[in-house]
Amino acid sequence: MLNFDFQNPTRVLFGAGQIASLATLVPANARVLMLYGGGSIKTNGVHAEVTQALAGHTVIEFAGIEPNPSYETLTRAIELVKREKIDFLLAVGGGSVIDGTKFVAAAARYEGDAWDLIAKRIAIEDPLHFGTVLTLPATGSEMNAGGVVTRKATHEKRSFHNRRLFPQFSVLDPTKTFTLPARQIGNGVVDAFVHIVEQYLTYPVGAKVQDRFAEGLLLTLIEEGPKTLADPQDYDSRANMMWCATMALNGLIGAGVPSDWATHMVGHELTALYGLDHAQTLAVVLPGMLRVRKDAKRAKLLQYAARVWNLTEGDEDARIEAAIARTAQFFEQMGVPTTLTGYGLTADAIEPVIKALEEHRMTKLGEHRDVTLEVSRQALSLCV
Amino acid sequence: MLNFDFQNPTRVLFGAGQIASLATLVPANARVLMLYGGGSIKTNGVHAEVTQALAGHTVIEFAGIEPNPSYETLTRAIELVKREKIDFLLAVGGGSVIDGTKFVAAAARYEGDAWDLIAKRIAIEDPLHFGTVLTLPATGSEMNAGGVVTRKATHEKRSFHNRRLFPQFSVLDPTKTFTLPARQIGNGVVDAFVHIVEQYLTYPVGAKVQDRFAEGLLLTLIEEGPKTLADPQDYDSRANMMWCATMALNGLIGAGVPSDWATHMVGHELTALYGLDHAQTLAVVLPGMLRVRKDAKRAKLLQYAARVWNLTEGDEDARIEAAIARTAQFFEQMGVPTTLTGYGLTADAIEPVIKALEEHRMTKLGEHRDVTLEVSRQALSLCV
Repeated sequence: MLNFDFQNPTRVLFGAGQIASLATLVPANARVLMLYGGGSIKTNGVHAEVTQALAGHTVIEFAGIEPNPSYETLTRAIELVKREKIDFLLAVGGGSVIDGTKFVAAAARYEGDAWDLIAKRIAIEDPLHFGTVLTLPATGSEMNAGGVVTRKATHEKRSFHNRRLFPQFSVLDPTKTFTLPARQIGNGVVDAFVHIVEQYLTYPVGAKVQDRFAEGLLLTLIEEGPKTLADPQDYDSRANMMWCATMALNGLIGAGVPSDWATHMVGHELTALYGLDHAQTLAVVLPGMLRVRKDAKRAKLLQYAARVWNLTEGDEDARIEAAIARTAQFFEQMGVPTTLTGYGLTADAIEPVIKALEEHRMTKLGEHRDVTLEVSRQALSLCV
Repeated sequence: MLNFDFQNPTRVLFGAGQIASLATLVPANARVLMLYGGGSIKTNGVHAEVTQALAGHTVIEFAGIEPNPSYETLTRAIELVKREKIDFLLAVGGGSVIDGTKFVAAAARYEGDAWDLIAKRIAIEDPLHFGTVLTLPATGSEMNAGGVVTRKATHEKRSFHNRRLFPQFSVLDPTKTFTLPARQIGNGVVDAFVHIVEQYLTYPVGAKVQDRFAEGLLLTLIEEGPKTLADPQDYDSRANMMWCATMALNGLIGAGVPSDWATHMVGHELTALYGLDHAQTLAVVLPGMLRVRKDAKRAKLLQYAARVWNLTEGDEDARIEAAIARTAQFFEQMGVPTTLTGYGLTADAIEPVIKALEEHRMTKLGEHRDVTLEVSRQALSLCV
């Protein structure tokens, strides 16, 4: 096991009816900015429920945080926070709204250009406190201290992370996800699945607890993903999927083990260049990436094949290929295509991705820092 | 899945060499009281290493916190804290030292009789902050907010729990456990195992993540327990056992599921009356308790038999009995006897336990509150 430093102070209130807890979770005398996305929370009752819970609080609203939240939109939110002397943020939405809220929290008391917090990795000393109401299980942002923001003007999609950016609390009510479109549920399952894989499918370091936890989450997603897609109102199935997505990226399964993230880095460029959903990019890149890097990941791929897919017959390469194929089939079963063609793209889409990776210095990715541009090119060539 | 409210803010620094981190973890200007037990930390190098890391800090010491920490001893520590105007506590030891430190932290700024914090369940408003250096993996106290204290004068062993009593940080260095006696390692594995069982072997609520995590921890203990007993210096094996013990009782696997704790409550009386180690009492009580309550726990016992012990053949009762027998064999393999006879006691030991349970109002235990005194008596009668 590798040495680690783990802390996750976010309080999670999980279950039907928990939105009412906001009445006491949000500081009584705070000036609150409630941030949300395209307005689905107004049609599914979440906005009304949050507003009711916050009766008596001073709440201002900022709507319109888009999927892959943009620096341009968030800059307007930051201006509003400063102008209105906001001292608590409440994100109501999915990973994009929460990531965006983290960026606003980080920049609220920073006087320089907010983009520098990411581009120059300036330490965030004094972020605003914030909480979240999660409406879309997928990214895990509700219980971690990272985020991803896109600068539209330059097609840059960049991540940030800071110990001070954990939500104070997150409210997870599975019933509030019942009305989500199938595409978002499919994406959410794939997103969570690949988060786990990035921290699990590397090389063995004897970290048995972390491995068992990762495998337990993968098994649960495989069992519950199709069920929750077929029956959106099956409470336990949706609850399990929601808790999986949170646990997939809250630091726990990644503590004490190597991590990869090459699939994510390549995927970010696909979103920035062609507008694919985040999970769609992961579904496209992962199978090819695993195939290209089969030898370096051999021991863990065999463990994955045996424990997650119950593949114990045949020679090693056959078991590995079967496990990767089953993974891709699972993504397809969740309604998420696993080829560029599935999104109307061709092999011509590859070179711009490689060029973007080079521009962003993503030339040594993965757990061994050996995913060069050429390796990424090979992986993508298997994803057409 | 049941609704839950989960938060665990403790920072964990895990791995060889992490004690050096105390230099920055402990507040620079604090007046620190370092609490420890019988002095083994002076022979195994931990005391020296901690002292070196805290060079420049003001540190006073309090030695002599005994296994099953006593109110009487802790009262002297509380007096010292008040007299010396201590404002940070550092527990260096196992669960008893950490539990004791929590009690001291809770009582340090309380003006009344400290025992009332437990006996009258007085809310703890303003505990001292504290950190821990764990030297004995077992109880999970290093990452939770509870403790157990014994009042020698009255033979009372009582537990307490308060959200404000999480350690600020805990340092877990597996190499510092290499010199522990086999008895303490065996006890630690059994203690962690039963902590997991108390939160897992109840009735199904569709909480698949929690079940998989619990099963992953149990499987790891079964794999690593005998290995770490046989080879105390196998780093990964000891590290896995250590992390299992922490994860067994930090709130995570218990969030959203029912919990039992009847075995613990009966076990506490065995310690208070006859001086058995905590884990020894659990090893004695658990098998009988599971047998007596087989019907109420049937579904989870079958899941436990299949997933943890790979017992899938034969009728239900045979699989359940085999799983319980394997559990007891595992405890025996860890050097922890599973009968009263194994500790020189006879059936005569039972009635005083029942009387003590009655005195402490432990008359409706377990996940269904149906473990009456008669059920406890039946369970103990199977443990002779």
